[in-house]
Amino acid sequence: MSTKGNVPGWKDKILFTPGPLTTSRTVKQALLRDLGSRDFEFISVIRSIRERLVALAGAKPGEYEAIPMQGSGTFAIESVFSSCVPPDGKVLIIVNGAYGQRMIKMCKTLKIEFEALEYPEDSLPDAKEIESTLKHFVGLITHVAIVHCETTTGIINPIQTIGALAKAAGARYFVDAMSSFGAVPLNIAAAHIDYLVSSANKCIEGVPGFGFIIARKEALLETEGWARSLSLNLLDQWKGLEGNGQFRFTPPTHVLLAFHQALLELEAEGGVEGRAARYYKNYQTLVEGMRELGFKEYLKPELQGYIITSFLYPDHPKWSFDEFYKRLNARDLVIYPGKVSNADCFRIGNIGRILEADVKGLLCGIREVMREMDLAL
Amino acid sequence: MSTKGNVPGWKDKILFTPGPLTTSRTVKQALLRDLGSRDFEFISVIRSIRERLVALAGAKPGEYEAIPMQGSGTFAIESVFSSCVPPDGKVLIIVNGAYGQRMIKMCKTLKIEFEALEYPEDSLPDAKEIESTLKHFVGLITHVAIVHCETTTGIINPIQTIGALAKAAGARYFVDAMSSFGAVPLNIAAAHIDYLVSSANKCIEGVPGFGFIIARKEALLETEGWARSLSLNLLDQWKGLEGNGQFRFTPPTHVLLAFHQALLELEAEGGVEGRAARYYKNYQTLVEGMRELGFKEYLKPELQGYIITSFLYPDHPKWSFDEFYKRLNARDLVIYPGKVSNADCFRIGNIGRILEADVKGLLCGIREVMREMDLAL
Repeated sequence: MSTKGNVPGWKDKILFTPGPLTTSRTVKQALLRDLGSRDFEFISVIRSIRERLVALAGAKPGEYEAIPMQGSGTFAIESVFSSCVPPDGKVLIIVNGAYGQRMIKMCKTLKIEFEALEYPEDSLPDAKEIESTLKHFVGLITHVAIVHCETTTGIINPIQTIGALAKAAGARYFVDAMSSFGAVPLNIAAAHIDYLVSSANKCIEGVPGFGFIIARKEALLETEGWARSLSLNLLDQWKGLEGNGQFRFTPPTHVLLAFHQALLELEAEGGVEGRAARYYKNYQTLVEGMRELGFKEYLKPELQGYIITSFLYPDHPKWSFDEFYKRLNARDLVIYPGKVSNADCFRIGNIGRILEADVKGLLCGIREVMREMDLAL
Repeated sequence: MSTKGNVPGWKDKILFTPGPLTTSRTVKQALLRDLGSRDFEFISVIRSIRERLVALAGAKPGEYEAIPMQGSGTFAIESVFSSCVPPDGKVLIIVNGAYGQRMIKMCKTLKIEFEALEYPEDSLPDAKEIESTLKHFVGLITHVAIVHCETTTGIINPIQTIGALAKAAGARYFVDAMSSFGAVPLNIAAAHIDYLVSSANKCIEGVPGFGFIIARKEALLETEGWARSLSLNLLDQWKGLEGNGQFRFTPPTHVLLAFHQALLELEAEGGVEGRAARYYKNYQTLVEGMRELGFKEYLKPELQGYIITSFLYPDHPKWSFDEFYKRLNARDLVIYPGKVSNADCFRIGNIGRILEADVKGLLCGIREVMREMDLAL
């Protein structure tokens, strides 16, 4: 299952990052094909992708629609805000990390009215406060938006609880499930989600090049005329895909072929449950090994997801993250460079085509690097 | 140079379309690599791509900046309109095809004021009328926008003449060079272009997944605070790339690696001149062969570029474009399906990793299909 050495002269590093990820050899091989974007064969691939995504969300066909959108995951998120909030709409944004902050920045740029409830990065949002805020702004707040797994820290937010509050308040509910979708079990309808966003290069283990939106059809259909962008117009994108089966504007054909292969491999692994089990094992192995080496997690274990883990910078005079990162990289072990959290921590991802053996290899590399840096914790 | 058979079980069709195109085997092989988007090696690839694009535009480094933007070419075009036209700006859009019409639609959606000068699809814009319109709206029109090669028909617009008029009127000049850049000789500064847009999967012969903007630095720097979108914010995208060398949001890493390889192959072919010579030969072979078979071009030869050619539907009772297309497709020869022109014509592209031998193969296939369809012209 090694991804190394598939092209002469190269040897792939192993990516312990939140994406782009290490992907399987077979997913990458699916890239090796030039296919016309308006050709009937490509159209059937798009249809298959859209159907499989709806099934992966635990949704009934007809109730939800999967809509791929060119660009990164952020483009797909902006597609929802810019297309699905009416001109006089107002969004309640729930924030406990950098990706929630990005939603605020997006609404400011799009001149969309919003309220923000901000919480520390190591804490869950306060459901009571959300409920009372929704009551206070009753009839004004049209949308509630939250991040499922905040990649900033790895915290998992209680999307089902908040979905029930949004529904009770008559607001549409938007979940950024970028780094959780496909590996954290979810029933989109039970969580009252109207719009869910994720991207190709996360837990489905494709390569980057597009994001996708899974939208409740009834909610989507009421957005006619609201779009603030031509490229990112979600309803028009859906109409194009439903009409002639094609994208309105050139899609990343090779990346979509690889994504289709990635979906087949996810199904072969046992779907969301199977993938969750592998990632959880990666997480367990990582955290146990890191504790043994003297590192401490940033989050309390009960808040920590198994997607990505934040470790506190050790309090040691010889510690230098730059040095630590570069020495691991020289061993072909790539952890996430830099930090977005306010706290001094670094992050290691468990997702992608990574097995327990790879995590053990990482731990072994970390041990050696610590010895070289004279970093006994 | 055949692109066929590079993956067991598949055989690539040859694409005579305006993109996605047939690409070289080596460009596709460059896709086979997982690289972290914030890794120093990837950062050096981005830098190399940006430098090579500026050189390809015949520009001096420092005067112009190349900025890749995730999404299709249309996303890159919207990036310019939505980021670089001030709130009180007004665009003069010059239209003689579907891609000019798309600019109108974009400005309407973005609520950007515009004037449009529309010409028939088989005619060049009227320079005198453009000049007098600019005089009429003097001080009001901030930007002039035009498509270089209108893929609708294949017509090549006189961008240098119109650039001089824009400059004389003190307006910024925006050229959609989507399907010409890299194969039609151009000096961006001499044509007075402030913003030029093209994409990965056109004449540079990469795979689809991003577009790029080549912007005059002085014009770009005056756009602070004008962006109407977060994802498509051109100035912020440039600041990110200049700051730490990284994209703000996840780029299509594999597609960028392939694009870098495509740029090296373009240089090895003799740059723009070398590629132009090959495409021109393809065009000549195609047109001569099609005339022999009884087809007629839609455009007058002096207006026709060598990128893509429109042929009139033959006036024959047995003619059916659908049938014609499907029979060619079954022979692994893919021409452009459907039409966007108002006239009844179909289109054949000459770009991509296609040689004279491929064009001859296409002509041979067309001859056979005509015989099967009992279509003597």
